[in-house]
Amino acid sequence: MIQEQAPSTIIYEYPLLERVRTYLRLENILQALQPSTPVDQYNYTRYFNALFDIIELCERSDVRTDVQKDLERRKAQLKLWAQHPDVNLEQLHVTQAKVGDALTAIQPMSRVGSSLKQHRLLSVLRQRFAMPGGTCNFDVPQLHYWLQQPQEFRDADTQQWWSELTVLAHGMLLELELMRSQARFRRVVAVNGLLQESTEPLSLLRIRIPSSVPAYPVTSGHKQRFSIRFLRYEPIHGKASLDEDIEFELALCP
Amino acid sequence: MIQEQAPSTIIYEYPLLERVRTYLRLENILQALQPSTPVDQYNYTRYFNALFDIIELCERSDVRTDVQKDLERRKAQLKLWAQHPDVNLEQLHVTQAKVGDALTAIQPMSRVGSSLKQHRLLSVLRQRFAMPGGTCNFDVPQLHYWLQQPQEFRDADTQQWWSELTVLAHGMLLELELMRSQARFRRVVAVNGLLQESTEPLSLLRIRIPSSVPAYPVTSGHKQRFSIRFLRYEPIHGKASLDEDIEFELALCP
Repeated sequence: MIQEQAPSTIIYEYPLLERVRTYLRLENILQALQPSTPVDQYNYTRYFNALFDIIELCERSDVRTDVQKDLERRKAQLKLWAQHPDVNLEQLHVTQAKVGDALTAIQPMSRVGSSLKQHRLLSVLRQRFAMPGGTCNFDVPQLHYWLQQPQEFRDADTQQWWSELTVLAHGMLLELELMRSQARFRRVVAVNGLLQESTEPLSLLRIRIPSSVPAYPVTSGHKQRFSIRFLRYEPIHGKASLDEDIEFELALCP
Repeated sequence: MIQEQAPSTIIYEYPLLERVRTYLRLENILQALQPSTPVDQYNYTRYFNALFDIIELCERSDVRTDVQKDLERRKAQLKLWAQHPDVNLEQLHVTQAKVGDALTAIQPMSRVGSSLKQHRLLSVLRQRFAMPGGTCNFDVPQLHYWLQQPQEFRDADTQQWWSELTVLAHGMLLELELMRSQARFRRVVAVNGLLQESTEPLSLLRIRIPSSVPAYPVTSGHKQRFSIRFLRYEPIHGKASLDEDIEFELALCP
């Protein structure tokens, strides 16, 4: 009965390069910042946690430069493909234009988040969000003031903050889209719940599992070798390992 | 125009005792855990951040004992009041019954969160939530599995986790309600944006400000002395201090 409403498959991904790991983190967090969800006194913790996580990830690694280099590689790759006799040239030109536009936009960018740090409310809040429950109205009365203003007041700020991230987000999401499109899913079997493979250098594994399988994949690996072990979902106790063969689908994105 | 939709007043509170500070933090966080908001793949960060903040606050101080002692003081206080000739006895008996019930429920409780820590998903997640963007599907595939199940699957867990907190939450919210009911708002003026007072020992200040005032109060103080300084909301730069007289309302809760 519970299975009826479940989606038919679940996709898990595993990055095999450090920068792809960061891209996937950013992609996951960016959801929370879409201006389509107005920020209010009920959901504000999700919003600010996401914003500060993005600022921190962009401080730790130079995402802008990584995305730019990746897109330059895509541009060169697309140019090569254009010479292939079987290619759909119309489709390819659309992709070339997208990559070109994203590169043009990203080149003049300064480091992400530098202007966000100048916002007084954000710099006070960032310290407070590191403390458990540290954003009460007595901790940061200015946040309470902000949350009690009409929605348009907050929308103006969140639109502005979002606009600081859109160029990078757009380029990075395009790179992820191109990366994912490089490989098709193929059927594989994890014998006794385990699959190990050695491959050509990869960026990303994609794992598609029927939602009827009561287990999740734990992946480890580096560029040219990976293993996927399935564990039974056991919330409290009991043996989590699985000794059955699991059929699933795998895409290896170079 | 912006003012039209604003609420007519904004209430700020300032705790003058450490345990009241913790209560207000918990009250603020508990909102995010109400079972009326189903947890899903879009809002899960707010939910788990709130849950882990509560566990951490309850580890840092023995909230259960504090609430129990406070309610015992209320019980004694109500007994004294019952002897006052002008008291509304019917109302008082209702309150006495509430306090009695909350005390009966809270006495047999063990430390909050001890059973939450035994949940495998929660103990893995708690570590991951401390890292920026650390809850991707490759970090905690079991979370992704959990988020992809039908809503009833998650509801059963969140109901269970909520039930671990309800007795404490109920007692603590009752204590806050009684504390807030101990004082009425009175009109005061912050001359040149500043109000300082010495008083009898207090637990909580409540500050009610017309929402047309473009400033927020920064409070400091201890049990018998406090100051409230109004600062202009200045998001980016400019002088934040305010040299005008500000009329507002203040309630001093003993």
